[in-house]
Amino acid sequence: MSRPVRTRTDPDEMRVRILEVAEDHFRRIGYQKTSVADIASELGMSPANIYRFFPSKGAINESICGRVTQEIVDLAFAVARTKATAAEKIDRLLTAIHRHNKSTLIKEKKTHDMIAVAMEENWPIIKEHIDRMTTIFEAIIREGVEAGEFQVDDPAAAARAVKISFIPFFHPLLIEHCIRHGEDTEADLRGQIRFILKALGKTG
Amino acid sequence: MSRPVRTRTDPDEMRVRILEVAEDHFRRIGYQKTSVADIASELGMSPANIYRFFPSKGAINESICGRVTQEIVDLAFAVARTKATAAEKIDRLLTAIHRHNKSTLIKEKKTHDMIAVAMEENWPIIKEHIDRMTTIFEAIIREGVEAGEFQVDDPAAAARAVKISFIPFFHPLLIEHCIRHGEDTEADLRGQIRFILKALGKTG
Repeated sequence: MSRPVRTRTDPDEMRVRILEVAEDHFRRIGYQKTSVADIASELGMSPANIYRFFPSKGAINESICGRVTQEIVDLAFAVARTKATAAEKIDRLLTAIHRHNKSTLIKEKKTHDMIAVAMEENWPIIKEHIDRMTTIFEAIIREGVEAGEFQVDDPAAAARAVKISFIPFFHPLLIEHCIRHGEDTEADLRGQIRFILKALGKTG
Repeated sequence: MSRPVRTRTDPDEMRVRILEVAEDHFRRIGYQKTSVADIASELGMSPANIYRFFPSKGAINESICGRVTQEIVDLAFAVARTKATAAEKIDRLLTAIHRHNKSTLIKEKKTHDMIAVAMEENWPIIKEHIDRMTTIFEAIIREGVEAGEFQVDDPAAAARAVKISFIPFFHPLLIEHCIRHGEDTEADLRGQIRFILKALGKTG
């Protein structure tokens, strides 16, 4: 923050500026309608100059998605680090991710579209993100087993099942479908969390 | 079958013929590319004549979807009526629907596209179908509770949770995504069924 900008063409700084302008365009105009030429023009440079930093518009989207998914992982770690019981952590984590995704969809429709594109074009990045999230679920499940709170034979398998059971509350297209058809996801969410905790053999 | 056709313009017979020709076109050419004029032309009639029976192409799709979803409901009832335990029924039912949807997708890509369109255009019909399936789940869960096989306080809520936990294995778009990215749904399916049975408090 306090470090002075040394030069306008510092490559790291240039990448950050391209990403900022691109994200702003994607959010305002939409991913599909934004071209690399638009981003270049806003920065007062040629498209060829952009391609020195990112090989394609897809690569720019990939970087932005990395940041957006990191926000969700940070949110998950914040819950995982609290002093709550494992059951409370599972509950808060699933609720927080669902609400985060839903509010992104409602408030920032264009960001949502960007992620939907990424789910097709940059599937490896999204898949890696889902794997990281599943690892966080697994860590909480192991904690619960050690505390005698959960009865689970295979925490990794249980974490995968939790992930699958929650896809309808995480997946942008399914959330979008529910909102469009006026369905109440909140009631289903509470029921689903109870069901999952029962599958984890929650005691007490 | 043995009843002789009385007249070519019998309204019921006409509806059946329109649906047959339409479904054949949707499967061969695709839903989007088929027009009411194409269907009319194949039947040697005018589009206006088709509109006497169905107000739109969407209405034709709606009727065909009714038949396709009925196949799945029939399949579910067939499993529900067997002499198996409730846990076995849940297992066979979920497996059968997943495989049915997956094979429809692989073998009949165009039928799959037709259903995907219906999920947007005829959502009330698909929703009613999902509700019927959930009712079949609930009946099996109640059977399991009565037999002392499951420990469930609220069978209707449990049936909804089973449905939600299985969306990734039923939803055409999600199955399509998995197949396209070469993911193995079969292993996840087995794990998910075990997880669900645990959530239903399966004993023994």
